[in-house]
Amino acid sequence: MSLSDQMRNLARNAKAASRELARLSSTEKNACLQAMASALLEAEPQIQAANQLDLEFGRSSGLSGAMLDRLRLDSKRIQAMAQGLREVANLPDPVGITLDSRTRPKGLLLRKVSVPIGVIVIIYESRPNVTADAASLCFKSGNAVILRGGKEALNSNQIIAQTMVQAARQTLPTFPEHAIQVVPTPDRDAIRELLSQTDLVDLCMPRGGEGLIRAVVECSKVPVIKHYKGVCHVFVDRNADLEMATRIALNAKAQRPAVCNAMETLLVHSDIAQEFLRMASGPLASKNVEIRADPASLTILSSLAPANTPPALTIKAATDQDYYTEYNDFILNLRIVDSLNTAVDHIAQYGSAHSDSIITQDEATAKDFMARVDSAAVYWNASTRFTDGGEFGMGAEIGISTDKIGARGPMGLEELTSYKWLGFGTGQIRT
Amino acid sequence: MSLSDQMRNLARNAKAASRELARLSSTEKNACLQAMASALLEAEPQIQAANQLDLEFGRSSGLSGAMLDRLRLDSKRIQAMAQGLREVANLPDPVGITLDSRTRPKGLLLRKVSVPIGVIVIIYESRPNVTADAASLCFKSGNAVILRGGKEALNSNQIIAQTMVQAARQTLPTFPEHAIQVVPTPDRDAIRELLSQTDLVDLCMPRGGEGLIRAVVECSKVPVIKHYKGVCHVFVDRNADLEMATRIALNAKAQRPAVCNAMETLLVHSDIAQEFLRMASGPLASKNVEIRADPASLTILSSLAPANTPPALTIKAATDQDYYTEYNDFILNLRIVDSLNTAVDHIAQYGSAHSDSIITQDEATAKDFMARVDSAAVYWNASTRFTDGGEFGMGAEIGISTDKIGARGPMGLEELTSYKWLGFGTGQIRT
Repeated sequence: MSLSDQMRNLARNAKAASRELARLSSTEKNACLQAMASALLEAEPQIQAANQLDLEFGRSSGLSGAMLDRLRLDSKRIQAMAQGLREVANLPDPVGITLDSRTRPKGLLLRKVSVPIGVIVIIYESRPNVTADAASLCFKSGNAVILRGGKEALNSNQIIAQTMVQAARQTLPTFPEHAIQVVPTPDRDAIRELLSQTDLVDLCMPRGGEGLIRAVVECSKVPVIKHYKGVCHVFVDRNADLEMATRIALNAKAQRPAVCNAMETLLVHSDIAQEFLRMASGPLASKNVEIRADPASLTILSSLAPANTPPALTIKAATDQDYYTEYNDFILNLRIVDSLNTAVDHIAQYGSAHSDSIITQDEATAKDFMARVDSAAVYWNASTRFTDGGEFGMGAEIGISTDKIGARGPMGLEELTSYKWLGFGTGQIRT
Repeated sequence: MSLSDQMRNLARNAKAASRELARLSSTEKNACLQAMASALLEAEPQIQAANQLDLEFGRSSGLSGAMLDRLRLDSKRIQAMAQGLREVANLPDPVGITLDSRTRPKGLLLRKVSVPIGVIVIIYESRPNVTADAASLCFKSGNAVILRGGKEALNSNQIIAQTMVQAARQTLPTFPEHAIQVVPTPDRDAIRELLSQTDLVDLCMPRGGEGLIRAVVECSKVPVIKHYKGVCHVFVDRNADLEMATRIALNAKAQRPAVCNAMETLLVHSDIAQEFLRMASGPLASKNVEIRADPASLTILSSLAPANTPPALTIKAATDQDYYTEYNDFILNLRIVDSLNTAVDHIAQYGSAHSDSIITQDEATAKDFMARVDSAAVYWNASTRFTDGGEFGMGAEIGISTDKIGARGPMGLEELTSYKWLGFGTGQIRT
């Protein structure tokens, strides 16, 4: 069978499964998730054996230690996967919610009701635990999922999916076996073939580095929801509480710099720049944050530097390119701006429409910033680090979207649904 | 300037305009819409002159009479455009609505608020009045629009857009002149260039024949919301009120067969097929509906035929391809099915996920049908013809979507919005 036919089959089976999934009750789905969790724990030896094959292949093909660590499924990680499934079982079912209801003049009752999206393709990189997380969220929301992880994790991903499907079928004989599928080939062209099945695949969600995501968007004919990167900003306004601003800047940059909602650029109003940088530079230096500064802030920081040792603050001149960069590291761009307008323009130009925050005591300024910054999440006096499904009370997160069509911001179960209109009549016709 | 640069400029100007539009108040937008309406009426001589150029070019390039009629902007049509703008002015503003609100444990208040989508490209065929309709709906919802009509209507489209923009600028000096733009070239490659600007264009909505829409989906790198076609079904269940079923079938097929929510295929339960077809064939014949019948219904209809003259019912044997076809005409596919399952499977196989209806007095059967048919609108005891923005109470409609990501079903102003999350804090950081 050609790769194209193989992918078409995979998608066709997923579509058929999605019709069955849409009919399952919450009780049935939750029982399956609990059974899947138990089965993952019981299958630990088999999962570790499959994972061992991946690790050996990874070692022989020269994967780095960090990559091998991400790939590894030890007892603790398998337990965490199982625990994740139990948590998803305990979340409310997002399907069947009435979102709107209206009775029209002729008596036709229209109800807008949440439904599963259908068939979702998830493309991700190395961590095999994503397989269980993504599969459970798609299943709970009634979607069939086609999983495409890194080629180095293929054996691990397959055994996880297989274990989950078998457990569900033992619990619920009507569970459709193609509800959770792993693309069985590492062939890169498989993605293009799969994402050409516009009549069968409803959505693709790529998760990973910007290169992967751009490649997916470039080749996909089906809708894609994604974020390319997280270049997040904190703007310290002239009317900010500078102690609060320092605390938030430090948290947004340094609490966990490797994540997409960490701050990359700190914008500081010129009126309070001298005072704020005097306060903030010490704490930033103590976290070993390297500063990429514009000329104005460079001048201020240079005058402060002697007082800040030890440890010394590492300061470099920022390039234009730096302001577009997601470092995922203890590096921070700094720019002094003369107005809210300049801050908003900077964010529009260099930002990634992910998460941005203003620190100010002035309500009018805050509201103006929140209205004008066109990002998935905009904060007033809070850290950008809150953009997260757990922090938003979604219970779990399958990704974060910076798109405008479909879900925006953190995506939990509700964001994995679409809707349909149900019309309840008594013989109404159009005249 | 190359075509690529020209389209990039157009999109960049639209993006900048969209930022200004997002800040306009409802009062400002409504005043602009009223001024645009008056201006269209005042500019009737200039609009007719531009339209005359298009008509002459159309005639010389051999457009059919029907096409020329669609292209024509007479006094009545210009008045209708103006009236349409006034109606949009009177609709509620869809921007700034709080869709969700939650306070998190640390006191961070999260509000999910509707916002404009940003930059929308609308691609359509000949009728120039779509220019005013689409521009007004995009403007009211705070979106910048780039309009690409048929090349035969370019002069008409340009004068309409220009008149609207000038009127708005006179009313509101801050109105951004690039809020409404017409692609200034008939070059077909312009579409591909425009739909490659993933950082500037947020959405494309093609409206027209299936060929146009498939071509757009094929080349677009930005999200597309559309429906390919409307292959709508009515299923007459064994427990149907057959008089109601006859009335609804007749309405769904023959009240206005050229529209996408008209029925193309009538599915009839075998238990009541004889009786129902005896009742329905006369009324269908009286509307000159041609029947494409499966073998079972062919047998029944042949036995009925003598009683149905005059006028005689035109009956042909249906091909498999017929069931996929949107006729936009007085032609109806007919198939007898032995169960709800077969009806649901037929709709999944041949349907276009647009609008489908079940006629039955049995609630359990109706609910099963409504749950399992995966279409934008699913009716119980009502005509498929209700799938329409006006009938849904949206006040106006920019299109109908059969997609699962973003809007589904009729799209009014609310469906032209996205959302963002606003986080109101008092210094919260993540720990």
